[in-house]
Formats: sequence, structure tokens, C-alpha cells
Amino acid sequence: MSKRPAAKKAKPMNAFYAQSGGVSAVINASAAGVIEAAMKSTKIGRVYAGRHGIVGALTEDLIDVYKESRATIKGLRHTPAGAFGSARYKLKSLEQDRAKYQRLIEVFKAHDIGYFFYNGGNDSMDTANKVSQIGDQLGHKVVCIGVPKTVDNDLPHTDCCPGFPTVAKYVALSTREAALDVASMAKTSTKVFVMEVMGRHAGWIAAAGGLAGKGPDEAPHIILFPEIAFDKEKFLARVKEVVSRVGYCVVVVSEGVHDADGKFLADAGTKDAFGHTQLGGVAPVVANMVREAHGYKYHWAVPDYLQRASRHVASKVDVAQAYAMGKAAVELALAGENAVMPTIVRKSDSPYRWTVGKVALAKVANKEKMMPRNFITKDGFGITAACRKYLAPLIQGEDYPPYVKGLPSYVSLKNQRVARKLAKEFVLK
Amino acid sequence: MSKRPAAKKAKPMNAFYAQSGGVSAVINASAAGVIEAAMKSTKIGRVYAGRHGIVGALTEDLIDVYKESRATIKGLRHTPAGAFGSARYKLKSLEQDRAKYQRLIEVFKAHDIGYFFYNGGNDSMDTANKVSQIGDQLGHKVVCIGVPKTVDNDLPHTDCCPGFPTVAKYVALSTREAALDVASMAKTSTKVFVMEVMGRHAGWIAAAGGLAGKGPDEAPHIILFPEIAFDKEKFLARVKEVVSRVGYCVVVVSEGVHDADGKFLADAGTKDAFGHTQLGGVAPVVANMVREAHGYKYHWAVPDYLQRASRHVASKVDVAQAYAMGKAAVELALAGENAVMPTIVRKSDSPYRWTVGKVALAKVANKEKMMPRNFITKDGFGITAACRKYLAPLIQGEDYPPYVKGLPSYVSLKNQRVARKLAKEFVLK
Repeated sequence: MSKRPAAKKAKPMNAFYAQSGGVSAVINASAAGVIEAAMKSTKIGRVYAGRHGIVGALTEDLIDVYKESRATIKGLRHTPAGAFGSARYKLKSLEQDRAKYQRLIEVFKAHDIGYFFYNGGNDSMDTANKVSQIGDQLGHKVVCIGVPKTVDNDLPHTDCCPGFPTVAKYVALSTREAALDVASMAKTSTKVFVMEVMGRHAGWIAAAGGLAGKGPDEAPHIILFPEIAFDKEKFLARVKEVVSRVGYCVVVVSEGVHDADGKFLADAGTKDAFGHTQLGGVAPVVANMVREAHGYKYHWAVPDYLQRASRHVASKVDVAQAYAMGKAAVELALAGENAVMPTIVRKSDSPYRWTVGKVALAKVANKEKMMPRNFITKDGFGITAACRKYLAPLIQGEDYPPYVKGLPSYVSLKNQRVARKLAKEFVLK
Repeated sequence: MSKRPAAKKAKPMNAFYAQSGGVSAVINASAAGVIEAAMKSTKIGRVYAGRHGIVGALTEDLIDVYKESRATIKGLRHTPAGAFGSARYKLKSLEQDRAKYQRLIEVFKAHDIGYFFYNGGNDSMDTANKVSQIGDQLGHKVVCIGVPKTVDNDLPHTDCCPGFPTVAKYVALSTREAALDVASMAKTSTKVFVMEVMGRHAGWIAAAGGLAGKGPDEAPHIILFPEIAFDKEKFLARVKEVVSRVGYCVVVVSEGVHDADGKFLADAGTKDAFGHTQLGGVAPVVANMVREAHGYKYHWAVPDYLQRASRHVASKVDVAQAYAMGKAAVELALAGENAVMPTIVRKSDSPYRWTVGKVALAKVANKEKMMPRNFITKDGFGITAACRKYLAPLIQGEDYPPYVKGLPSYVSLKNQRVARKLAKEFVLK
């Protein structure tokens, strides 16, 4: 073969990775998937992460991921929450927030960033999609790939969302453990136990509580879904019936439960940056309702962040999928894809088999996947066999973190800043 | 040696075992310790358990423990809550409740019960002590041995109480996990996180939250103890200072926190059978206080029963001690002791070494061990090195339950009833 003169090699473009929205027990596993896959490729230069997600890009506060040791990056796989910082910071339409999108491209250009991996939910997929468009418009091409993450499990076109299976496992096992406690005490003390779980609009997390038991006598006896309008009389009658039959009643209630008029049972009255109402405290509302009607002694629990940060009891399936999504995002980018998100495609229920697929960002952006009606029992208080078939495989397997002195040993990063290149400051409002 | 004629062997007396008060993740491990030790001895006939604790004895609702398989009894070691049912049912003084004590002895006599193993806290040790006295008075000797159990860790004369180390581990790791979540979000969202933990009068469980971090910048930044009168101004000033310095603030608050006048911050207004005020909901009170003063976005969590039923993350030390206390109770009885409770005696901190001791029931009855003042920092918001030295060994080691289909596999008992021998019914009031 004749030797051709080597073409002048283009300097490989750098990648930008950002975490967005509420974090999860496995979002860092996706980060590890992105980073380790990028490290293996000669087509990608360095990987920068946004300190506090997209905010880090806007303020040019980039973290040089390659300053961390390989062991630390590996440790992200077993470390919950967002190691680089996440943000609740939504970019609006290209028209409304044009200056911000332009700023993003400016920063990307200044740091030779040609890849953007955005790890978040439906809002973030919308942003990633728009960044891809504006880059083209401004003449700085950025390959934008979404990495799915949301404990709410409400992203369409994927079997589930990394983060959800671990919350599901946590909620199912917490329901099982607490129910044993209530059963022990019911004769002379607590008869009704109410546990509030996350899930703003979709009842996936509440549904997972249903995996704790089997028949109608096993806890949870009642699940309250955001998909089903709350009917106070019907609920109170059911509680009474369960206490009479079983001796006690365990209720799992989604934070997003509302009445037929759409009014949340517990509305803290404040809104977050995405314009979502900040919820919390529906459990005491429901528990008091039961007490007033029936006089039963009650206890209630609100695990709040504990459920989504519960890396100590992660689903093995979840960790594997979260990592796979990060890795696949890089592979899609390297294969020439743009404005897509890798997905989890279910091949079989039992044994659970899945592969990696993909979907256009435009198809997932700002869309929510609710529980199908046939996943909820006719009376609206439980899950069906179809729902169990869907949920059961997701919580399979344990993936314990290492422990040191009796506590999980989670990595902490140096998060060293990349030198600034732009003169202009961006002031976050 | 000359062969002496065998003395007519007395039929071995049966044993009665009961669980009392709030259950824990390891009270069943103590049950396994009692039952397996009793099974090995020819001096003890059958072991009966009270359905719902002492209530089962009063109502002659006895469970024949020997109807369970050996595997099931073994499985109690990894099963949380009270497998035979517990009760919040306190017997008053011998004068006030004479009829009930007499009834107990009647039932014991009818079922040839000569041993009483009572698994509970300080109230229960008082009851066991009195049963021992009344038995003697009524001419039916009952050997009464206490088995220590209380997640509150407030029993004196023992290094710790079975049940506490697992709650301590749960609270420390939950604080660590949730704090990582808050740290991720603080830039644009939640700045203050408040987690409420159990501990009516003593701050042991709240203190355990302190194991999550080390320096003043690590969560939890503030612990609110029942031993320290709550000072609102001082607390709010500290929250502000921490948020300014660290960017966020994690608060662990004991349910028993009260002001200088003894008024609980959150008083649900109801009392349980022991006359204790039923608490709950101090976390939202504290969180709202912070919001009103500083306007920070907050989240709060109340794990409630989840913390004391958290067998999935049990301390290995706790499981071993709980089992050892049950076993030792039987051994003490067989050695001719009466009206005593086995204790845990610390031999060294690091490595943690402990042996089994004993103490007279009269010495533990109705007494509470508070946190010593030198375990709490001078400012009242944290734990000292002395406290860490005490707490750290207790949460060591993991003792995972077996999992089936992604969830802990806990045993459930047949709880078969022993045929009644008494004509008279006892009506529980």
C-alpha cells in the first residue's frame, strides 16, 4: 500500500456534562458512564462538568473532570446525589431566553466544547434540543445528547428512567418494614400509618409501594395516586373497612394527590424555578383526616430526600441502567447522532432483559408519562397484575456501596475549576 | 460409685416471652436468642409468647412458639418489628393494679409457666420486677428476667440498648445521603433540610445523626437535642451563618425538643397508654420557622417508623447484642438468678469489645439515661469527641437480610394459639 501524507488532525472537541433538576441515587452512575466512555475515545478531548449544572455553563464555572483520579470517577457509580451540583434552572423558548442560549454557545466555543451531555428529565431534554438548534444557527455545532434521569419515571419512550427503580425499591421495602412495625403495635396503639412519597404528577413511586405486599390483607392496603381524583368519603370508608378486617391500615400517598378540581391535598404555596408548585406534607393531612373521622391513633412518615438519595439500598438494575445510559450517550455522539437520548428497551419481563435504544429529544421534551389506567385497580386504591409485571423487574438485585466504619463511603470530588476565557460575567438571576 | 435411686424428676416449667412497647429492627433477634437458648435446656418446657405482649398473658392468648419451624425461629434474627405483637400496656403499682397482677399469676399457674422473659424498656423492667414479687406473694414462683430493648437508648446500667445501634446507623447514613442531595441542589433550590428523628426525652438518636459528618462544614450542621432548651433566636442565627458559609444547612431535630418552659415544639396533644405525650411533626415547625425568618427554600423529612424498622440496614453489632441479650436472659434464669436484666458491658472502644453483665431490675425500672452534658458541644448544636467515641463502635458492620425478588425476605409466623385453661375471661380496658 502506498503511504499517503497524514491529513492535519483536527483537535478533538471537548465535552460538557451537566446534571439537571432533582438528583437521584444513581445520577452519578450516569456521570461515570459518560466520563469513562469519553476517556476511552480519542475523538473527545477533555470532559468538563457544569458546577451546578447548566448554571456552571452560563457562569463559565466549568469543572475539569480529568483532574479527578480514575478511582474517584469509578466511585461515582456508588455515590448518590449530584457530585458536580445540579440545578433547578429552566431555559425558556429560544425567543424568550435567546441571550442565555447565545451565552451558552459563547462559553462552549471558548472552551472548544462540541459535545453536550445533559442528564435530566423532560424539561432538560427540551433544553438540550434547543441548544442543538441554536448551535447550528450560531455556527458552532454542538452535538447534544440527553441522558435520562428522573425519579418520577415520567419520561416517555423508555422502559423506565434511571433513579426511579432505586426509589421504587426504597419505597417498597420501607412500606414492608414499617407495616411490620404497625402490625406489631396495632392492638393497643397505632392503627393507621400514612407514608408520603414523591411523584408530582405521576403515581409511579406510589405504585412501587404496592410491591411490599400481595393480597388485600397485606400492606399497603391503600395507595393514593395523583392519577385518581381523591374522594374523601370513599377513602375514609375504606380505611375503616381495612382496620376492621385486618386490625390496622397502611396508606401510601403520593405528594401529588389532588381532588376532582385539581386542588392538591397539601399545597405549601410556593413554586420552584420550573413553575411547579412545591409540595410536601400531605401525609399529616391525610392522617388527621382519618383521626377526625374515626379516632384511630396514627403515625405518618415523609421520607422526602431520603427516598431519592437512598444509594445504600440501590436497585442493581438501576445502577446498571444509569451507567449504561451515560455510556450510550457518548457512543451515540461518536456514531454521529445528535439531539437524541438513549432509552431502555424492555425485551422480556422475567427474566428481565433490556437493551439500549434511542429517541429524538423532540419526542421526549416536556412530555410526561402517567400511569396507564390499567395499572391501577378499578377501585383506584391499588396496583394491578399488569403494574406488578412492569415494576417487579426494576427493583431486582442489590448493589451495596462500600462501608467504612459502619457508614457508606461515598466519594467527594475536587471539582477543580477550568480557567476562565471570557471577559464578560454572566449574572444569574 | 454406688448408684442412688433417681429422684422423681419435676416436670420442667414452661417459659413466657413477651415483647413490650415500641418495637425495633432487632427485638425479634432477642426473641430468637431466648427461644433457641430455651430449646437447648431440659429445665425449660415449652416457650409461650404473648400475643401482643403482656396483653396476651392477661387475656390468656398464648402462642406456642414450638409450633414454628427451626428455620422460622432462626429467621427472626433478620426480621424487624415484633413477630408476636407488642403492646403499649403499662401495669401500674401492685396496689393500683393488683387484680391484673393476680390474673397474670393465674394464667402462669394454669400453663405451668415458671419463667417470664420480658423484652422491653424501663417501664417493662418495672413490670417484670413486680411480677416477680407478686408471684412470691401468691405462692407461684416466677423467675422474671428482663431483656433490654429500646431504640431511645435510655436504659441505665448497659452500654447501649438493642434497637438503638440500628436506628443510629439508619439516622447517620440517611443524614449523609440526604445531605449530599441538598448540597447538589443548594445553588438554585433547597438550602435548608430538616430531618426529625425519634427520642422522646433523650437525644441519643439525634446525636447519632452527628456521625454523618466530621468538621463544622459537614452535615449535619445543627442538631437539636431534647436535653438543650430550644432558643429560637440562637438557632435562626446559626442557620443563617451556616448557609452563608457552606451554602446550605442540614438540621437533625429530635421529636422531643422543647423550650425552656418544657413546652414541646410540636405537640400533637394526645397521650399514649403510658401517659407519654404523642409527638410528631417538629420538622415542619422548624422548617417553617427558618423560612419565615430567612426565606430559604426548605425540605423536611420525618422517617418515623422507617427508622426503627430499618432492618435492611441493621448494625451488625446491634443484631449480635440483641441476640446475646435474649440468650443471656435464659442463661441467667437457668443459673438461678431472678429479677435481673442482662446488660452490655463495654470493655474497649476501638476495637469495640463487650461482654454480658447483669443488673437488678429494681435498678433500671422507670429510670432514664439522658445524654451526658459533655457529649453535647458547648453551643448545644453538635456532638463532642467523647460522644463520637461512644457512638462510633455501635454502628459497625452490616448484617443484611436475605433478599427475594428485590425485597428483604422477612419471616412470618403461624402464631398458633395454646388451648385455654381458664374459664374466666379477662376484658382488656
